[in-house]
This record gives sequence, structure tokens and C-alpha cells, in this order.
Amino acid sequence: MYKPRLMAPGPVEVPPQVLEALARPIIHHRTEVFKEIFLRARAKLAKLTLVPDDVLILTSSGTAGFEAALLATVPRGGKVLGINAGKFGERWVKLAERYGYEVVSMELEWGKAVDPDELINLLSQHPDIAALLTTHSETSTGVLHDVEQIAKVARELVPEALILVDCVTSLGAAELRPLEWGLDAVVSGSQKGVMTPPGLAFVWLSERAWAKSDKLNPTFYLDLHQELRQQRQGQTTYTPAVSLVAGLDAALDLLLEEGIENVWARRDRLNRTIITAAESLACAPYAERASPAVAALRAPEGLKAPAIVRGFGKRGMRIAGGQDRAKPVLFRPSVLGYADAYDALTIVAVLEDVLRELGQNIPYGQAVAVAMQVLAET
Amino acid sequence: MYKPRLMAPGPVEVPPQVLEALARPIIHHRTEVFKEIFLRARAKLAKLTLVPDDVLILTSSGTAGFEAALLATVPRGGKVLGINAGKFGERWVKLAERYGYEVVSMELEWGKAVDPDELINLLSQHPDIAALLTTHSETSTGVLHDVEQIAKVARELVPEALILVDCVTSLGAAELRPLEWGLDAVVSGSQKGVMTPPGLAFVWLSERAWAKSDKLNPTFYLDLHQELRQQRQGQTTYTPAVSLVAGLDAALDLLLEEGIENVWARRDRLNRTIITAAESLACAPYAERASPAVAALRAPEGLKAPAIVRGFGKRGMRIAGGQDRAKPVLFRPSVLGYADAYDALTIVAVLEDVLRELGQNIPYGQAVAVAMQVLAET
Repeated sequence: MYKPRLMAPGPVEVPPQVLEALARPIIHHRTEVFKEIFLRARAKLAKLTLVPDDVLILTSSGTAGFEAALLATVPRGGKVLGINAGKFGERWVKLAERYGYEVVSMELEWGKAVDPDELINLLSQHPDIAALLTTHSETSTGVLHDVEQIAKVARELVPEALILVDCVTSLGAAELRPLEWGLDAVVSGSQKGVMTPPGLAFVWLSERAWAKSDKLNPTFYLDLHQELRQQRQGQTTYTPAVSLVAGLDAALDLLLEEGIENVWARRDRLNRTIITAAESLACAPYAERASPAVAALRAPEGLKAPAIVRGFGKRGMRIAGGQDRAKPVLFRPSVLGYADAYDALTIVAVLEDVLRELGQNIPYGQAVAVAMQVLAET
Repeated sequence: MYKPRLMAPGPVEVPPQVLEALARPIIHHRTEVFKEIFLRARAKLAKLTLVPDDVLILTSSGTAGFEAALLATVPRGGKVLGINAGKFGERWVKLAERYGYEVVSMELEWGKAVDPDELINLLSQHPDIAALLTTHSETSTGVLHDVEQIAKVARELVPEALILVDCVTSLGAAELRPLEWGLDAVVSGSQKGVMTPPGLAFVWLSERAWAKSDKLNPTFYLDLHQELRQQRQGQTTYTPAVSLVAGLDAALDLLLEEGIENVWARRDRLNRTIITAAESLACAPYAERASPAVAALRAPEGLKAPAIVRGFGKRGMRIAGGQDRAKPVLFRPSVLGYADAYDALTIVAVLEDVLRELGQNIPYGQAVAVAMQVLAET
């Protein structure tokens, strides 16, 4: 018997307090009781996101949140630059193409972070872009793009362009300062660092993004203008997932109690522990700039990553494999959910056992010892 | 102390088995375990909907489901006829207008059901419509439109037009036979007769609707073609609300165990009980053809409906008031959720108490006695 353990970069294990909130009797959304919960959760979410004002909560996945942000702020047919450095960056390029935007795709080798010089070069060739679309934590490769630097460069070279950022796995995981960095859209979702079940998207827009937006493109369910008016009153335009909102409210209490900077530090420390321990097992890091949301690891020479993922599965632990081209070589455990240092050690212990089973010659506890030392020293 | 009781036409009280399923640990959606639950829930949902094949499950409210069905099947700029007989019929007219369809709005007085002769007249004037949009159970007025008859007329007069039906409050409440009636889209949601928390939409399209559809309009999150391919494999394009899917799976077991025709009969019997008992208290029915999903009742002469809704609230029971123009006169209790005969009696008992408090001279138990007699005889 193995206990099921969900150690993938989302959906994540959620705290028991969140599960308890989900199991509460349904409340009607057009009531004072719901209004109070909703306004409270919105305020806490803004606090977690380090923005002074409105974060909109949509009943959808994060993808719909990004779609809504793009359609609300960039005129159809406009030119956008999409940083395509993995599965999610690619998604935003496809999204923009689907809607008839003129898309400049900045293609990066998987595992690479954005090189500021290359970005400067590309922006100089396209000074007329209306927006730059990027992921912050690119989950498919484990890379944390330096969004602070990207935004700085963009603000200098293309000051009129909006900077729309997919923060789905970075919110509640990596340092994220939308105001200081000059971001125009922050899009996230419930099922990652916010430790809530999937089903809610979060969208924050900057003042200048709101000012530029004016129902540029027809939308209905994803109409952010309508949502803004409603959500300021503690309501949503259409029926929201009330159970998930109750869960979110509970999860935000835990995150804010810990403190957002402590949450960033915890995830970074645990993730680095896993990466360092894995390196001692000949599993090289895949990402040149590691996101704290996920440990993207290469299978050791001669082993196939899917066999490693299956080995975790046999022991009750669900981690992510690689997507598309990275499938043969990449495996991705994560401490993005409700996880502490002993969960990181367990991931390392399982990795040791799996690799031994696959024929690697590893002394018992070797990598766990490395992990314990990293934890003691950081 | 009063127990909280949610007796509105959605979101509804859900069975404890559903709440229990929601509180289970999160499972990853890209797993065999989820695939099994999802395919099972989809099969049960098709059974409940009396369709032989694919019902798509979206993470959104029902509104997004209707938006997806329209955009998937009707070319932009095409002419559509919308039956505008209340708040939800009006919503579909607005949706179509927002996207640039040419909309013929068939305006009905609130509380009225579609008159087939008027519809025949209108269709004769607009033989070129590409689709007819209607609600089945119009929750805002309590009217159940005779969709079987509407579809029959439309199939005769405008055989090429698709018949897109909002079944949000009729699925699991009123007789609904999409195949026999020749419907082309059935759209519903989780939080009504299906007794699951809000956050999931359901969309079924007929073979001819799928045949006519071909990515006519750009969509991304709501791309039904992509969803169909994924959902046949037990997957969704984007991360689904896994907790709500687990709840849905549990709710469908209860509904199918009871049997869909028994579910229809139960809700109709309970709803008629409430309406008949309310009539004995001088609360006239608002709908000329009552939907089993909701008892739309007029406040007695001289009383304001919002005062009645507040009276219910003081006693712990949440019912719906009237919307827009119906607000002063209409109140709407409902047994659409997890409700039996004794819940219907409780609604009647509360109504008696509220009306007495508001100055009506009603002998104790008068309406409850009427209700008990109706229940005994039906």
C-alpha cells in the first residue's frame, strides 16, 4: 500500500481546510453571505498578488483568463510579440493567431530563458507591437523567465506596448511584483500556488490596460468590463463556482498567514533541494533558470523519463512527465501545493528508489542525505 | 435558530454524497483515474439527457455553454430568431447581438408561453433564419415553453434552421427528449436539476449541428471541436474543475438510480403542490405553463414580493425574488435541488407564517393541509 501523493505542478494537493470549505452546504450567490465571502477573497487575492486593487475571479481555467485579458486590451488585427519558449508560451501564440492578431513569435529552445539582448533586437525590429505576451514560470520547461527584466526592456523600447503575463504557476510561488515591474496583465489560476482546486481563473489589469481597453473585441462570458462592475459589488455576471470560492477564501488565509515572501522562499528552498539532490543522482536540471514552481529534471543517461514517471506512480506519487518534444527526457516533480520540507525529502527518496529499480547503482539514502544537508544549510 | 435552507431555482442544495465527493483529495486530470471518472460521468450525463452520444462538460457557467454552442454552429452575421420571454431568453438575444448576428427577437409578455400560431407567423416572415434560440424552462418567469411543439413547427417551416435550447433549469426537472423532438443543441449547467455545485456547463449537439459546424467563428477556451476530440478520450483541453466532476459523478448516480422519468414526476408533483397550496393563500401563479423547476408566484393583492422574500430569509430559507420588471410582484421558491415532499410542505409552512406576519388572516395550517391533500392525491 502506498498513500496517493500529488506532487505535480498543478493541480496540486490542497490543505484540509480547503477541502472542508468545499464540503460546506451550497450558498446562493445573490446573497449578502456570498457577497461578503467574495469581497473578502478578492481583497486577499489582491494582497497575495501585491496589487492595490481589483483582481477579477472567473469560473474557468487560467487559459480563459488569458484569452479574456488579451481580447479586452488589444485591438483585433494588432501586432503582438509572443515569447514562445515552451508549451504555454506556444499556447498564447496560438490564441493570438486564432483571433487574427499579427503575431511575432520569439522562439526559444526549450529550457532556455529569455535573453535580454535577443529581446532588445527583436523589439527594435517591431517597434509597433501593441502587446508582449509571456509566461512567467513556463511550467513545461521549468524555466522562470525574468519578467522584471523583460518588462524593463519592453517599457524602454516599446513604451506603448502592454505586457501581458501568464502567472498561472508563478503566483504564490515566485517573486512577482506587478506594480514595481510595470506589468499590465497578471493572469493566474486557482489550482497551482494558490492551493485551491481547479476551476477559477484570476485576472488583474493595470490602470493603463483598463484605459486602453474598450470592448475592443466581442466577448460575452469573458467580458471583463462587465465583470469589473459586478465584482466591485461583490457579485459576478454569471453564476460563479461558489464552492471553489469558499475553498479559495480558506487557502488565501493560510498563504497570507505565512506571508507571501515566506511562501516564495519556502517553495524556492524546497525546489532547489530537490534539484540539488537529483543532480547527485545524475539527473541534470532542464531549465537554465529554475522556477520554484517545478523541478524540471533530465533522466540520467540511458534511462527514459516516462519509466521514471511510471516508477513514481507505482509508489503512489503522481509527478508530471515531459510534454511533446521533452517527453523522452524530462520528468517534473513539484512542491507547488500544500507541501513542506518532508514532502521534498519524500520526493527525493522515491526518486532514489525508482532509479535503483531501473538499474542505477545508488547507495541507500545518498540523495536524501544531500537533500537534508541543503535543507539544513538554507 | 433556523436551519439554512436553500430553496431557490439554482444554485440548489446538493446531496451529502456530492459534498463528500467534493471534499476528496485532488486528483490530477492527466491520469487514468480521472479519465475513468470523466468518461463515466459523461456516459451517465448522456443517459440523463436521453441522448445516445457525447455531452461535453465545460468548466464555466451555463452561459458560456450557450455561447460555445452558438459560435460553433451558426456563421457570424447569420440571421437568428430568439424567443425573448424573460431574463434568459433576453440573454441569448443579447449574446447573438454582441457577436454581430442579425437577430429577430420574438418578444413575449413575461409569464406567457410561446404561442405556436405567433411563432408560425414569425417564421413565415423569416424563412431564412439559420437558428432558433429558446429557453426551455424560463427561470425568470417560471414558464416551461413547449419545446417539443416549437421544434416541430420550426422543423416544418424552416427545416434548415438549427434549434438551440437553453435547458439549464429543465435538465433533470422537466420532460426533455432531444432526439425525439429534433433539437440541435441542449445546453445545461451543474447547479440546477443535476444537484451539483455551480461551475460546470453541459453541451450536447445533434449530428446535423456538428455537420454544419466548422470552426465558423474564432474561439479558444470555448472551442467545442477541440473539446469533442479530447473528451472522447476522457480528457479536456484545459484543466477541468476535477472536484466538481467528482461531485457530478456522485449526483448522477442518485438521479439515474431514481430514474429520469421519476425525477421529472417528483419535481412536477412537488412544484404543483406548492403552487396549489399558494393559490389557497391568494398567491396566483405567474406562469401560464408552469415549469417544474420553480414555483413562480404572485404576491397577494396589497403585499410586496420583496417583503415575502425577506420573510423567508428571516426563517433561514433562501428563495428567489422576481427579476427586473417582475421584482415587485414575483417570488420563486423551488424544489429543483435535493428536495422531497417534506421540503415542499416546509416551503408552504414558511409561506403561511410569512403571510400571517405581513397581516394576512390565515388559519394555522390551512395551506399545509391543501398541500398534504395534493400530495396524497398525486
